[in-house]
Amino acid sequence: MKTKVIRGGWVLTMAEGKAPIKDGMVKIVGEKIAAVAPWKDQQLDPDWELVDASDSIIMPGLVNTHTHAAMVLFRNFADDLPLMAWLQEKIWPLEENLTAEDVYWGTRLAINEMLLSGTTTFADMYFFQDEVAQATEESGIRAVLSRGLIGVNPQAEKNLAEAVEQAKKWRGKGEGRIQMMLAPHAPYTCPPDFLKEVVAAARHYQLGIHIHLSETRDELEQIGRSYGKRPVAYLAEQGIFSRPVLAAHGVWLDDAEISYLSRQKVGLAHNPSSNMKLASGIAPVVKMLTAKIPVGLGTDGAASNNRLDMFTEMRTAALLHKLATEEPTALTAETALRMATIEGARALGLEEQIGSLEQGKKADLIRISLHKSHLTPCHNPVALLVYTVRGGDVTGVMVNGEWLVEDGKILKGDEEEVCRETGKRAEALREMSIKPR
Amino acid sequence: MKTKVIRGGWVLTMAEGKAPIKDGMVKIVGEKIAAVAPWKDQQLDPDWELVDASDSIIMPGLVNTHTHAAMVLFRNFADDLPLMAWLQEKIWPLEENLTAEDVYWGTRLAINEMLLSGTTTFADMYFFQDEVAQATEESGIRAVLSRGLIGVNPQAEKNLAEAVEQAKKWRGKGEGRIQMMLAPHAPYTCPPDFLKEVVAAARHYQLGIHIHLSETRDELEQIGRSYGKRPVAYLAEQGIFSRPVLAAHGVWLDDAEISYLSRQKVGLAHNPSSNMKLASGIAPVVKMLTAKIPVGLGTDGAASNNRLDMFTEMRTAALLHKLATEEPTALTAETALRMATIEGARALGLEEQIGSLEQGKKADLIRISLHKSHLTPCHNPVALLVYTVRGGDVTGVMVNGEWLVEDGKILKGDEEEVCRETGKRAEALREMSIKPR
Repeated sequence: MKTKVIRGGWVLTMAEGKAPIKDGMVKIVGEKIAAVAPWKDQQLDPDWELVDASDSIIMPGLVNTHTHAAMVLFRNFADDLPLMAWLQEKIWPLEENLTAEDVYWGTRLAINEMLLSGTTTFADMYFFQDEVAQATEESGIRAVLSRGLIGVNPQAEKNLAEAVEQAKKWRGKGEGRIQMMLAPHAPYTCPPDFLKEVVAAARHYQLGIHIHLSETRDELEQIGRSYGKRPVAYLAEQGIFSRPVLAAHGVWLDDAEISYLSRQKVGLAHNPSSNMKLASGIAPVVKMLTAKIPVGLGTDGAASNNRLDMFTEMRTAALLHKLATEEPTALTAETALRMATIEGARALGLEEQIGSLEQGKKADLIRISLHKSHLTPCHNPVALLVYTVRGGDVTGVMVNGEWLVEDGKILKGDEEEVCRETGKRAEALREMSIKPR
Repeated sequence: MKTKVIRGGWVLTMAEGKAPIKDGMVKIVGEKIAAVAPWKDQQLDPDWELVDASDSIIMPGLVNTHTHAAMVLFRNFADDLPLMAWLQEKIWPLEENLTAEDVYWGTRLAINEMLLSGTTTFADMYFFQDEVAQATEESGIRAVLSRGLIGVNPQAEKNLAEAVEQAKKWRGKGEGRIQMMLAPHAPYTCPPDFLKEVVAAARHYQLGIHIHLSETRDELEQIGRSYGKRPVAYLAEQGIFSRPVLAAHGVWLDDAEISYLSRQKVGLAHNPSSNMKLASGIAPVVKMLTAKIPVGLGTDGAASNNRLDMFTEMRTAALLHKLATEEPTALTAETALRMATIEGARALGLEEQIGSLEQGKKADLIRISLHKSHLTPCHNPVALLVYTVRGGDVTGVMVNGEWLVEDGKILKGDEEEVCRETGKRAEALREMSIKPR
C-alpha cells in the first residue's frame, strides 16, 4: 500500500491534552498512523497518495461499545413497549425463527449503516458468531464479537462450548481487526454455576467478558429477591471481575457499586437512546466518569434505538446528563466526543490500538465535510461534531489504513444487494411471527 | 401551474383517524391538495405532471413552532452553559453587533436548513422583521413571524410601534405564506404596563401573541418575587390570554396552570432539545396533551440546540417523555408525528390550512426516500419516521404547491452563496465579540 497523506481543515486527534489542529494532516503507512501534524510542517513526497480534505474535519473513527448488530432486521417492528414485554412478546418470538443466514445479512446491513455514520469499531453480542465474524471480516470494519449466552437455557453448556470454539477460531482474524469475548447475557438470565463456568473458560482462553448489567429496576429487584444482593455483588461472587469486563448499561448502579467497579478492570457501555426509549432510567454517567471508570457510548440494538448512529448517542448523552444533573456544564461536548472515541476504546481494552489519532496507532479515521447549510458556520469543531453533525454527514471512513467509505458510499460489497436481501428476510420474519403458530 | 400527481410508496396523511396508505397518491391543483387516495383508484390524465415517489414516504411538511432563525449565525459559538450566563455573557453581546443584513442572511441560511430537513412552516421570534420577512418571501417557505419585544428596553414603545407596522405590512404576503404575531419576549423581560399595551395592539390589529413562558425555575422564582404569583397568572392579569397565544417551553407549568391554559386559545411549543441542553427541565407534555392543549414541537434557536431539525425534535420528545414518566408507552411515535404536523399547525392557529394532507388544504408536503441502509427494513413507516429518519433523509419538499427541494437540493436561490456569506458574517461577529470593547 502507498503511503497516504490526508490534509484536513481540522484534525481532531482526541489525544490527551491535544487541541484540534486547524489545517492539519495525518500520514498513514500501511495500517498505521505514521504522523499527525500541522499541514505547513509537511514535506511532501511525490510518491504519496494525497487526499485533500481541507473542507473537512478528520477525527478518529467512532467506537460503538454495545450493540446487537443483526437486530437491524427488527428495526421499527416493536416500539413504545417496556423492556420485558418488548423482549418476551415481540423480540424473542422473532428471534426463534432467525437463521444463520439472516444473521449474516443483518450484520452486513448493520455494518454498512455503522460505517456510513462513522463507526469503525463495534462491540457485538448476538447469536451465530461464525456468520457475524464472516460479515465483519468481509466488510473491513473492526469489532469485538461475542455470543450471547442465556444461562437458564437447557443448551447453555453446549452454547458456551461453541462460543469458546468460535472465540478461538476468530480472534485476530481479518488482519487483527476481530477480537472475541464471552458474553453471559445478564445477571437475571445466568445462574451462579453457569457464570462460574464462563469465568473459568474466559480465564483459560484469556478472554474478556461482555455482559448486560443493572439495566432496569426490575433486574435490581429480581436479583435482590433471588440472591439477596445487588447485581454487582452477585457477579463479583461468581468471579466475573477477575476478567476484563465490558458492562452494558449500568443504569441502576449505586455509589458503592461505582466505587467497586472503578477498582476493577471494567469498562462501561452507556446507551442513552436505548435507556430512554425503554424508559429504563438514567445511568449515573457523571459519577462514573468522576470515578475514572472508562465509559464508552453504545447504540444497543436497532430494535431499541432505532438507529446505529453514534452521532445520535453523543448528542443524546450530552443533553441527557445536563438535564439529569440540572447542570448544563455536566457533560460537555468534549467529554461526549472522548466517550465516543478514546474512552470507548479503553472500555474495550483497545486503547493502545485505536480511539485517537497518534503515531503508531491503527489508522481508523473518519472525514466529515463541512460544506453544508446545517453545518454552517463552524465556530467550534468539537461542539459542531457533538450537537450538529448527523451520521449522514460522514463522507469518508478508513479502517486499518484502508478506505471503506468515500463520498458517502460503501466501497466493499454491494450496498443495494444487502438492502434488498435484508428487506426480504425482515419481511419473511415478520410474517412468520404474526401468523398464529 | 399544471396539476401534479405524486405516487408515494406510503402516504401518511396525519388526518384524524386515517391509517397510512400503502401505495397512495396526492393530487395537487395550484397551491392546494385536490385529492389523497390509494394509487389504484387513480385515473390519470396525460396533461398531469406525474412524480413517481413509490420508493418514498409522502407526508405533511413539518411545523417548527418556535425558533429564532437567524441565530444559526451563533451555532456552536457558546455551549455547555446555563441559560442566563449563556444569554447575558455570550448571546446578548453578540446580538448587539447584529445588523439587518446579518439577520437577512442568517434567516436565509436557517430556512435552507429547515427546508432541507423537511420543515415547511416555522414560527419565528427575532429582530429586523423586514429582513426576516423578505428572506421568507424569497425562499418560498411558510412562516409565522414576530419581533421579540423586551419590555424593559428603553426603546420598548418605539419597538412595539415598529412591530405593529411590520405586522400590517407583511401579513398575507408571499401568496399568503406569511403570517404575523406580536412577541413580548417573556414574563421576566416585560412589565405589566408594557404587556397591556401589547395586548391592546394585538386586539386592535387582530394579531396573535408569541411569548416565552415558564422556561426555567429562575423565571418562576423571579416572577414569584416580583409579583407574588406564577407566570401564567401574571400574564393572565395583563390580558394576554384574551388573544390567541403561542407559548414556548412551559417547562415549569403546574397542574392548575395546565388546566387554565387548556380553557384558553393557547398553543404550546415544546422544545425538548433546547430544554435538555440548557438543563431547563422537562415540560409536562403528557399532561398537556391529556388536557387537550395543542402541543407542537420546536427547535428553538440554533444557538441552544444546535440544529433546526424537526426529526431530531420528534425523536427527542418521544424518548424524553418515556423516560420522564417511566412509561415506554407515554409518548408514542404516532403522537410525536402528530405534534410535528397537525398539532403544531393547531398551536399556530393554522390547522385549517396545513398540518395534514387533506383535500382543500395547502399543498405543503415532504418526501423521504427509503432506499438507504439505515432506513432498511420498513416494518412501520410511523416508527421509522420518528425513531430512524434523519433530517438529511428528506429528498423533496413542496410548499404551497411549489417544489422547493428536489433530490435533496434547494431549488430557489444559491445555497452555496448563502453558506459563504453567512460563514463570513458569523466569523466577523465572533471577532467583534471577542475583542475587548
